[in-house]
Amino acid sequence: MKLSEIASIIGAEFNGDDKEIISMNTLKNASADELSFIANAKYVKDMSDSKAGAIIVNEKTKEFVPSGCEALVVEDTYWQMAVLTKYFAPPVEDKDAFEAEIGEDSDIAFEAEIADGAVIGKNCIIMAGVYIGSNVVVGDNTIIYPNVVVYRDCKIGSDCIIHAGTVIGSDGFGFASNRLGQHKKIYHNGNVVIEDDVEIGANVTVDRAVFGSTLIKKGARLDNLIQVAHNCEIGEGSVFAAQSGMAGSTIVGRNNVFGAQSGIAGHLSTGDFNTFAARSGVTKTITQSGKTFAGFPLMDHKLWLKLQGVLSRLLKSK
Amino acid sequence: MKLSEIASIIGAEFNGDDKEIISMNTLKNASADELSFIANAKYVKDMSDSKAGAIIVNEKTKEFVPSGCEALVVEDTYWQMAVLTKYFAPPVEDKDAFEAEIGEDSDIAFEAEIADGAVIGKNCIIMAGVYIGSNVVVGDNTIIYPNVVVYRDCKIGSDCIIHAGTVIGSDGFGFASNRLGQHKKIYHNGNVVIEDDVEIGANVTVDRAVFGSTLIKKGARLDNLIQVAHNCEIGEGSVFAAQSGMAGSTIVGRNNVFGAQSGIAGHLSTGDFNTFAARSGVTKTITQSGKTFAGFPLMDHKLWLKLQGVLSRLLKSK
Amino acid sequence: MKLSEIASIIGAEFNGDDKEIISMNTLKNASADELSFIANAKYVKDMSDSKAGAIIVNEKTKEFVPSGCEALVVEDTYWQMAVLTKYFAPPVEDKDAFEAEIGEDSDIAFEAEIADGAVIGKNCIIMAGVYIGSNVVVGDNTIIYPNVVVYRDCKIGSDCIIHAGTVIGSDGFGFASNRLGQHKKIYHNGNVVIEDDVEIGANVTVDRAVFGSTLIKKGARLDNLIQVAHNCEIGEGSVFAAQSGMAGSTIVGRNNVFGAQSGIAGHLSTGDFNTFAARSGVTKTITQSGKTFAGFPLMDHKLWLKLQGVLSRLLKSK
Repeated sequence: MKLSEIASIIGAEFNGDDKEIISMNTLKNASADELSFIANAKYVKDMSDSKAGAIIVNEKTKEFVPSGCEALVVEDTYWQMAVLTKYFAPPVEDKDAFEAEIGEDSDIAFEAEIADGAVIGKNCIIMAGVYIGSNVVVGDNTIIYPNVVVYRDCKIGSDCIIHAGTVIGSDGFGFASNRLGQHKKIYHNGNVVIEDDVEIGANVTVDRAVFGSTLIKKGARLDNLIQVAHNCEIGEGSVFAAQSGMAGSTIVGRNNVFGAQSGIAGHLSTGDFNTFAARSGVTKTITQSGKTFAGFPLMDHKLWLKLQGVLSRLLKSK
Repeated sequence: MKLSEIASIIGAEFNGDDKEIISMNTLKNASADELSFIANAKYVKDMSDSKAGAIIVNEKTKEFVPSGCEALVVEDTYWQMAVLTKYFAPPVEDKDAFEAEIGEDSDIAFEAEIADGAVIGKNCIIMAGVYIGSNVVVGDNTIIYPNVVVYRDCKIGSDCIIHAGTVIGSDGFGFASNRLGQHKKIYHNGNVVIEDDVEIGANVTVDRAVFGSTLIKKGARLDNLIQVAHNCEIGEGSVFAAQSGMAGSTIVGRNNVFGAQSGIAGHLSTGDFNTFAARSGVTKTITQSGKTFAGFPLMDHKLWLKLQGVLSRLLKSK
Repeated sequence: MKLSEIASIIGAEFNGDDKEIISMNTLKNASADELSFIANAKYVKDMSDSKAGAIIVNEKTKEFVPSGCEALVVEDTYWQMAVLTKYFAPPVEDKDAFEAEIGEDSDIAFEAEIADGAVIGKNCIIMAGVYIGSNVVVGDNTIIYPNVVVYRDCKIGSDCIIHAGTVIGSDGFGFASNRLGQHKKIYHNGNVVIEDDVEIGANVTVDRAVFGSTLIKKGARLDNLIQVAHNCEIGEGSVFAAQSGMAGSTIVGRNNVFGAQSGIAGHLSTGDFNTFAARSGVTKTITQSGKTFAGFPLMDHKLWLKLQGVLSRLLKSK
């Protein structure tokens, strides 16, 4: 899409050198043929180093656009970014792709639907009612139980097990809102990448990234009914018990254990080998490793036990 | 069904004028050819104005039945109401309906099942494994991702997106119980109505109403794994983050935001433009608008922050 | 499988009488042709009475192996047990079973998949996209809504209703972990048994047992999005509201009521006719019956109300 067309869609003035823009990306990851945006002043620091071909800015941030990069000046940059994601969204299925390739000895149920462009490895079992979207890649020896849905462009490794009803790659929960309370959908044009030896329980949801990938690393284990939001990263060997959830863009280190019905807020990270008790709620980045936490707000597990003792005595004294 | 037959099923004496009863409804909404009931003394006030053709009452409430309305007197009115819902329940599929109508340019996957009597608008995409029940109506430009289930008689607007694995219109969680601990199912003969421009995430559940409709208004946004119980109403532009839930008959105003893993109890309502923090639990009606709440029990967000400070200092002092 | 082969797989020395082992089981339930294991010193008391043909032990526990029973000595008994479960796991579908039997007047949707060896009773309705695994047994008059998945070997009673998207019999969340943070899957070779007159909501997950059965007794009622872990037992007439969850091996008595978003930890039990308020979290066995509890940590409901009053006054005094 031509940059001049993009400018026209979002009502930005444009007199610069026109160029072809192939996709949208973050300031950090955009390349010269990509469009980026700045919606929050705290990312101004990422502008000077950005390789983006153009950036959607407002009157205040336009001065930070690096030389060689075009500025598209609008009032509400986040809203206009959302508007544009639709133009870069591929169709829900890729009708022009080659016929799906199925590896040797893989057993695909007659009632499964494997869209064009998908590549399934060797010795896989894909059961009835499974939907594998366009251009999805599945490794070897992976078992996908009935009625799992994998949206287009996602990647699943080898030796994985995905239990029934799980949804991989649905759109993340992202939209721009205006003062009238209207919401403009942000199309999620990234994907989900699941590495080797991952087991995911039943009726789990793993959302695709806005840009880039939601990532579940090697050896992770997810129980049932878990929410993994867009752009999250789950470290190697980490374990999530049933009904736990991660909000967007959070990075969990390796071998963390999240108890049942626990949750972690968005844009955080954790160290390695931590344990979060059942029902705990993480709202701050955890720089430590090897610790056990509990409660909401989160605290050291021993402190949480002490708090319960204090409350109990307080109650008895009244 | 004749009123005399109904009386006979539930063991009520009946000597009045017989009439045809076509369905059941609440005291407030019942019309002259409908049957209602009173199971809770606080609804006695609704009896005098009720247009119902007949009301299931007990010895205590029979005196409030308005003239022209027949009284069916039983011991356990709620149980007998539940018994009767089964008789008014339609079959799970309507085998006599016309063949489904599909609008121009709509793309229905070969593996989707569209039951008789359904009407799909123009330019829709309905993907593999989707089940659309009898007499369902879907507007224009709506995308329904794989393995979504829409039970019979529900209505989905235009420009909606429903992500994979979501269930619209399953029976609400309602039953009458007796002292032996047995439960009598209340068949849910209402439906779900989703207005235009609503996006619903993956593996969400939206239950149909007992009578009337569960309603999701224009512009609402629901993330993944959310529970919307029978007879709820979600106001225009309201937003629910993942794993939040609503209990039955609760009415949320416009542009409320419910954080992840939050919940609201049944038979409540909220004002407009309120925010409920992640994990908050609403147990009382919120008459205010434009406020931010947190915690369980729920309190003003600032008060919740203060409470955490108080507890933290209490803990340090011990 | 020969015991000598088993010993060889897990690197245990074996000089005893070789014998055929047909499956694995707990110390309490194993019979002479079954293999058991001891991974936790607190189960040493179950060893002397065990009828197991062989037990996986370590250097410390080998002395408690009863006479007539073979000892397989390894370092990490839990890990080796996990390794062996894979060898006893049946294929995901039984390709040698007889063609499924469908009872009189049952209505099976064309788009449902009933695997070989399944037996469906009379007058059932099995809707589009349902998957019924090998050797599953379904009673009479049961309705299974679209896209439900029932894994192989599970049993569902008569007069049951299972709503759309629910998954019955997925593998429990069990694995052995080593110090490197690697996880070895425990294949779950048990099943799920659902008795008569049970209604289960939409997008629920009920995991199969490791050994034996996860059990939901007669008359129980489950709402939507509920997690029932491996080897749990739900007593007759018990009721779980939406988004509640049970961790593994917990036994709930009859006619307990669990409120929405509540949870109960693993390896616990409860009395009868108890109520657990919405969002309560049970972490200890409840020996009482007929009580109402709330909070996390759990306490008597009245005490919980008092605690909220104490905290409220504390907050006002600061």
